[in-house]
Amino acid sequence: MTKPLGEFDLIARFFTRPPRRAVLGVGDDCALLAAPPADERLAISSDMLVEGRHFFADADPEALGHKTLAVNLSDLAAIGAKPLAFTLAMALPEADAGWLAGFSRGLLNLADRYDIELIGGDTTRGPRNLCVTVLGTVPQRAALLRSGAKPGDDLWVSGTVGDARLALGHRLGEWTLDAPEQTATMLRMDRPEPRIALSLALRGVAHAALDMSDGLLADLGHILRASGVGATVEADACPASAALRTQELPRRRLCQLAGGDDYELLFTAPQAARRAVEEAAEQAATPVTRIGRIDAEPGLRLIDALGRVLDNAYAGFDHFRPSSSPP
Amino acid sequence: MTKPLGEFDLIARFFTRPPRRAVLGVGDDCALLAAPPADERLAISSDMLVEGRHFFADADPEALGHKTLAVNLSDLAAIGAKPLAFTLAMALPEADAGWLAGFSRGLLNLADRYDIELIGGDTTRGPRNLCVTVLGTVPQRAALLRSGAKPGDDLWVSGTVGDARLALGHRLGEWTLDAPEQTATMLRMDRPEPRIALSLALRGVAHAALDMSDGLLADLGHILRASGVGATVEADACPASAALRTQELPRRRLCQLAGGDDYELLFTAPQAARRAVEEAAEQAATPVTRIGRIDAEPGLRLIDALGRVLDNAYAGFDHFRPSSSPP
Repeated sequence: MTKPLGEFDLIARFFTRPPRRAVLGVGDDCALLAAPPADERLAISSDMLVEGRHFFADADPEALGHKTLAVNLSDLAAIGAKPLAFTLAMALPEADAGWLAGFSRGLLNLADRYDIELIGGDTTRGPRNLCVTVLGTVPQRAALLRSGAKPGDDLWVSGTVGDARLALGHRLGEWTLDAPEQTATMLRMDRPEPRIALSLALRGVAHAALDMSDGLLADLGHILRASGVGATVEADACPASAALRTQELPRRRLCQLAGGDDYELLFTAPQAARRAVEEAAEQAATPVTRIGRIDAEPGLRLIDALGRVLDNAYAGFDHFRPSSSPP
Repeated sequence: MTKPLGEFDLIARFFTRPPRRAVLGVGDDCALLAAPPADERLAISSDMLVEGRHFFADADPEALGHKTLAVNLSDLAAIGAKPLAFTLAMALPEADAGWLAGFSRGLLNLADRYDIELIGGDTTRGPRNLCVTVLGTVPQRAALLRSGAKPGDDLWVSGTVGDARLALGHRLGEWTLDAPEQTATMLRMDRPEPRIALSLALRGVAHAALDMSDGLLADLGHILRASGVGATVEADACPASAALRTQELPRRRLCQLAGGDDYELLFTAPQAARRAVEEAAEQAATPVTRIGRIDAEPGLRLIDALGRVLDNAYAGFDHFRPSSSPP
């Protein structure tokens, strides 16, 4: 049984901690933070997670707390920024102490692991909606922009790709996974791990980067447009988990090329930096794999292991296009 | 007729402008901002506006765009910070170009007036929800905290108080206003004006401040708790608009003492600074009025013009308490 709690009680009970770096944290009209050193840039990103679209209504609150912050940390990783602080604004249908306890635990445990501080926010009643704004810092010249890809660059991904989409297909009834496959892939969907360590190690090595949330090819499209280049991708070079490797090829390709939500990094680096990329990966204890190259010729070419051109039927995900059907 | 638009088209069409202060604006994984000077603090606040709670479903989109940013600028005013940049995350039930045109116009016009830059955000489908995170700067010693009130301080308000609640009561059918009263008060509810100029002029003069959104007495309670002091408030000293002055006394008191959403500043300053407060008000072209004093004795005492103690029946607004009934 949960007793109704006041808004201020709720915030105090689950989210207030003594400020650390913040001069002033949760509770005043604004949080106050010391300015970063003059040669650093502030990196800022906001992500909004909506029930029924980005997560299911029955999502485990602890995993959801983790994911809410993880997708924002992933935006910092995408640009090479070190996590600094974040705000949390949320609309909730009711003040459920059990849900809030789990959610805040998942959120703050991840925050502690990456030494990022919750400094403020807002709580209101409404259809469940979780909006985090994250702040990080990155030296002026080290930022990994989408616009930095150069012809001849290798194209790399971190970790394995496609598990979140494989799990989603099972949840949506598109296909059926056995129990161990479910466990392994659901974890990828529900508790993505932001690639902060790899991102910081790639500063000064990678030319361009982003975190994949819309699908590999759709996200690659963002880099190509921003950099004014093209790319050739080897469709089956993407590393797959054991669960995904057992799937038939069309499903595997769908999950790897069009599936989103793995939050792995997609990045480019000069061929001359292959050794440096591998060292960065080792330092960050994060596997990386070369899956293609950046071309001067515009457009995106998908090839198989024998170099034959494949039809690219893996359109990206767009929240407002009538044809899209993500969670 | 509105054609369905893609998410990225939408953002580009209505919200993308060339970055000014931002090194990198809308479109990458994060926005990048230059660090403020070392002696400045970064002030950060997030506010979430939910349809059916903070605004009506048929709200004029341009006014709503104005209000969405105005309530966040008001948080900067509450702490004495100069506006710098903001992000906008929004869930929308559909991609309606007409609505977006109006909303972005109201939002960006206000942004231009206060020289604050939209640097990033997120757009997704869902029940309408608008979340702005605002960044500002304030010199280390000039921040107007809730915890700064001292016994003997005067208690001041800016502008007139109570119109937003008067307009809301008409919309909810609690009472009926005639047409000119409606026009005047609806404008206060729908297009609040953040008190940035006054706030900046009060740096180094005021001891404590906040912007009133929950109701004068509820908001004063935040200052009293944070500062460990009490206060005596003269119930009818609050300035009222011409429309509110024609109302019967109980309704006027309800609107002024318990009504929120006027976004006027409530602040304290030492008696010795009365002249300085008046000069700040003149400089900012914003009227201010003394309505009480801060006491060493805890608690909040409400008195009438003759000094008689009144019963304080004006509880604050709390989004999660079952008894609250705001929009």
